[in-house]
Amino acid sequence: MQTTTNCDESPAGSTRTLRFVDWLSAELETEEASTKGDRRRLALKLAAARLLEDRGYDDFSTRDVSDAANVTRTALYLYYPSKQVLVLELLQDFQRFMMEKLRPSRKGMSMAEAALETNRTYVRFFAINARIILSIQYVRRNLSDAEKLQFDLNDWWAHKVARAISGRTTVQQRSSHPSKQALATAYALEGMIDSFLTELYVRRNPNLVALNLSEEAVAKLLTRLWLGALKGSEP
Amino acid sequence: MQTTTNCDESPAGSTRTLRFVDWLSAELETEEASTKGDRRRLALKLAAARLLEDRGYDDFSTRDVSDAANVTRTALYLYYPSKQVLVLELLQDFQRFMMEKLRPSRKGMSMAEAALETNRTYVRFFAINARIILSIQYVRRNLSDAEKLQFDLNDWWAHKVARAISGRTTVQQRSSHPSKQALATAYALEGMIDSFLTELYVRRNPNLVALNLSEEAVAKLLTRLWLGALKGSEP
Repeated sequence: MQTTTNCDESPAGSTRTLRFVDWLSAELETEEASTKGDRRRLALKLAAARLLEDRGYDDFSTRDVSDAANVTRTALYLYYPSKQVLVLELLQDFQRFMMEKLRPSRKGMSMAEAALETNRTYVRFFAINARIILSIQYVRRNLSDAEKLQFDLNDWWAHKVARAISGRTTVQQRSSHPSKQALATAYALEGMIDSFLTELYVRRNPNLVALNLSEEAVAKLLTRLWLGALKGSEP
Repeated sequence: MQTTTNCDESPAGSTRTLRFVDWLSAELETEEASTKGDRRRLALKLAAARLLEDRGYDDFSTRDVSDAANVTRTALYLYYPSKQVLVLELLQDFQRFMMEKLRPSRKGMSMAEAALETNRTYVRFFAINARIILSIQYVRRNLSDAEKLQFDLNDWWAHKVARAISGRTTVQQRSSHPSKQALATAYALEGMIDSFLTELYVRRNPNLVALNLSEEAVAKLLTRLWLGALKGSEP
């Protein structure tokens, strides 16, 4: 996989913390993990995240987690009654992490510039976190419907995008209730980007990998398609 | 789920055979199933397809298949050493079925008309076969990489679309080797359509289902986005 030099143009340090396990690890050092309990929980989640990334959900046990986190199993069960509960909390953290990383300020940029900048970050995000995204997708598929709804990042993102689309078309619709059409458009375009990045970086579809696209080329392609589709979606 | 009256405008009978199990069932009655062996194989596959649709891969046994097909288990094992082998052959049939249904003649139509017509068929196809597509996607995820490549319908379709895109941009590229850019575009747009239809009809994402879109509205939306994106993708 080629990487572009464009990563160097992003603000210092942002690329490093685009990696989920690094972000969790940095959390451990902040003041928010003030009590011994907080630090232990974080240490357990960090260990589980690394195991998820290295082995996948089915191939580690709570013993592996407690060993890696240097916590007794009794202590682990004090915080998390099961591996599933631990991983569900990790999913919430991943969701928070993703929202934090993909909600940067794009003030003063044109729609096209903002879209390209967002896609650059998103492509990087997928490429860096590919293995853990694979595990998270696997876990998500086995959730109940109610749990799935809780972890529907696409929904959060679709509403954000739909409001932006509505705002472009009519002033009246620039409200918290985007139109049905705008929401469906947002879901479709998100699906385009997510499925392309999942095939390329997460599932590593050989037909796509063979195209040998740089991350910058991927970001530019998806942005062009996105902007063209949005133009086409206007009545 | 709303259905549109547009289905009635398609050629007589085509909607009925858009359903995989009906198509298999019709195959049983053609002359191609000429020997007793052919008919038995087809009967077993038809039974397996129905079980896949009703219960999903993990919830039926070869005994269920042989019972439903009215064939002894000994006979079943004569043709298929395992449930997996049987289902793999079914995947090949599904692939053939899909290629047959999605390769209709669009002669004399503009690009926009042809795209809408193809999307109408595809939307119908997903809505009708949703449950068996869910099972097939599940089986596909557990295939080896080599097997996955063999069942990569997206690749076949992407090349077809990419050639059409190349043909639109430069005459020179209208060859059997579409450009890298055209191929990546085709994959991205396919991903948009497949992921939208999968979320809506197969996984039944409540956020999408709540939009209460008719099949005709879905076909029109996806066509508009597709054509807009294609325009945007031109250099």
